[in-house]
Amino acid sequence: MSIEVTSFKGSKNKGILESKTRRDGPTGNQVLVKVTHSGICGTDEHYKNADIVLGHEGVGTVEQIGDRVTKFKVGDLVGWGYLHMTCGECEQCLQGRDQYCASVEKYATHNTHQGSFASHAIWDASFLFKIPDGLAPEHAAPLMCGGATVFEIIESYDIRATHRVGVVGVGGLGHLAIQFLAKMGTNVVVFSSTDSKREEAMQLGATEFCTTKDKKKFEVGKLDHLIITTSFVPDWKPLLDVLKPRGSIYPVTVDSTDLVVPMMPIILKGFKIQGSLVSSRLVMRRMLDFAARNGVKPMIETFPMTREGVEEGMAKLREGKMRYRGVLVAA
Amino acid sequence: MSIEVTSFKGSKNKGILESKTRRDGPTGNQVLVKVTHSGICGTDEHYKNADIVLGHEGVGTVEQIGDRVTKFKVGDLVGWGYLHMTCGECEQCLQGRDQYCASVEKYATHNTHQGSFASHAIWDASFLFKIPDGLAPEHAAPLMCGGATVFEIIESYDIRATHRVGVVGVGGLGHLAIQFLAKMGTNVVVFSSTDSKREEAMQLGATEFCTTKDKKKFEVGKLDHLIITTSFVPDWKPLLDVLKPRGSIYPVTVDSTDLVVPMMPIILKGFKIQGSLVSSRLVMRRMLDFAARNGVKPMIETFPMTREGVEEGMAKLREGKMRYRGVLVAA
Repeated sequence: MSIEVTSFKGSKNKGILESKTRRDGPTGNQVLVKVTHSGICGTDEHYKNADIVLGHEGVGTVEQIGDRVTKFKVGDLVGWGYLHMTCGECEQCLQGRDQYCASVEKYATHNTHQGSFASHAIWDASFLFKIPDGLAPEHAAPLMCGGATVFEIIESYDIRATHRVGVVGVGGLGHLAIQFLAKMGTNVVVFSSTDSKREEAMQLGATEFCTTKDKKKFEVGKLDHLIITTSFVPDWKPLLDVLKPRGSIYPVTVDSTDLVVPMMPIILKGFKIQGSLVSSRLVMRRMLDFAARNGVKPMIETFPMTREGVEEGMAKLREGKMRYRGVLVAA
Repeated sequence: MSIEVTSFKGSKNKGILESKTRRDGPTGNQVLVKVTHSGICGTDEHYKNADIVLGHEGVGTVEQIGDRVTKFKVGDLVGWGYLHMTCGECEQCLQGRDQYCASVEKYATHNTHQGSFASHAIWDASFLFKIPDGLAPEHAAPLMCGGATVFEIIESYDIRATHRVGVVGVGGLGHLAIQFLAKMGTNVVVFSSTDSKREEAMQLGATEFCTTKDKKKFEVGKLDHLIITTSFVPDWKPLLDVLKPRGSIYPVTVDSTDLVVPMMPIILKGFKIQGSLVSSRLVMRRMLDFAARNGVKPMIETFPMTREGVEEGMAKLREGKMRYRGVLVAA
């Protein structure tokens, strides 16, 4: 059954473009999702000049299913994120680490004819996730990439409830990291340039808040982990000074610059710098379940799922004014 | 029982100085070691201008013991390394991670009146190690810091016999890493600037050898780990290109420069950069046992334990001509 799909794409000079196409319905293990909500992620910004459909934090209802789909039924609330498909057979897949699959299909490099800034999308059922009861679709959307990215670090590496964790930056990722960690009973020490986000950070569950601007020394207890959600660390010294020996540093923002860290403390204190990309499917499932059970709720600003709405939401994110995650809502 | 001790110290302008002092014998849990052999380590070079007794790869025989010593008896062959004493109570000590103890006493910053470039030293028995049968003292000496440093990485992090491990640099540390890994049945891929060390590397157990000079691409299979024993990596790109997703990078040379690594592959591929310092006591024991059982044998050049011998050995190391570890031998 053919359907009309409205999508929003990047473009070289003309801002966001609306595109209408007709597509065939899902076959085999495919699912047609009617998008109700989409998060706006910093990664979309990287592709605003590319001729691709934007958006990779999609949530919506199952509208049609292929003849082999058993996992979902029409009407289910589902979501998807950065990953579309994996080979299932490479070394990374066999360890459950989907995002590192040698042949992964993912946002912006594959299937660029569809995304979550759209009325519909068709995906393989194996990369769609049931949104658990108790999680509103507008709150689920920013979890599909932003939430997954920070939860992956907590779940897949060695962060424990008994640890003290520093979160650098209160934004789309940082405000979710604070909530996840706080709901696990972890000590969360938040670093932010000024005091402007102190109150919100404490309400989200931070146990300490430390401003960084113009400071050569941070007066906080020692930390086991540092999750760096800002794209830039102006001065490593005071941060490394509050990290315990064998502490871990997780830079989460993709950036084309070099990572420049003083060598001596890395070796003398046995620090670890751990790269991490979005999440595997297992971690995504666990994250959604955890968020629903524990009331983790992104703080969002909503925009209509229209050309103007996409433009406005992306501009606000670009200007650093989003508090803290933008969500496009279908009419 | 007082003893005369001859030691070799750094100095500001006068090269290596010989110093003779009388010292009281060991008390309590202390052990007096008559040094028979000492390794020469790159770290000694950092202190050649400092007024301290050099050397931290000591091996010798127990000459006297304090009244509380039960672990050793006179005549035992023992060794010591970088660490002298820990608090036993801090968070790191309670996890067995001696080298990261908040109050660790170690080479060059503590107990600088004695070292292994000397006739004798007195240490607490808890930081001395029995040299196992089958390990010659001249081969044990370079293992006390150099061997410990590379074995720590293999033993304490996630290096397994089924992994493919790259060793960058064939020198004091690299030639030991190759042997340890090869004796564990691991695939060892050696990177060296030119072909000059190919034959030796293969004899030590390397499975592949790759020259790096002027190359933009390395024709080797993908690796799980990269142990960087050189102090400088001129071009990260070809190295990172042969690292599997979620691969680990271990820089082992202490250096006061910045670590500069491209950010994008670290995050997109989930790489880990793991700092690591010498070894804990448990890892030291396991390393000595492993080396003795499996015939790991440092390739050494020997020098007499005299002022001239120390000068000559240190100069050879400084000039990059040591193949591969210098050992001072008492007359």
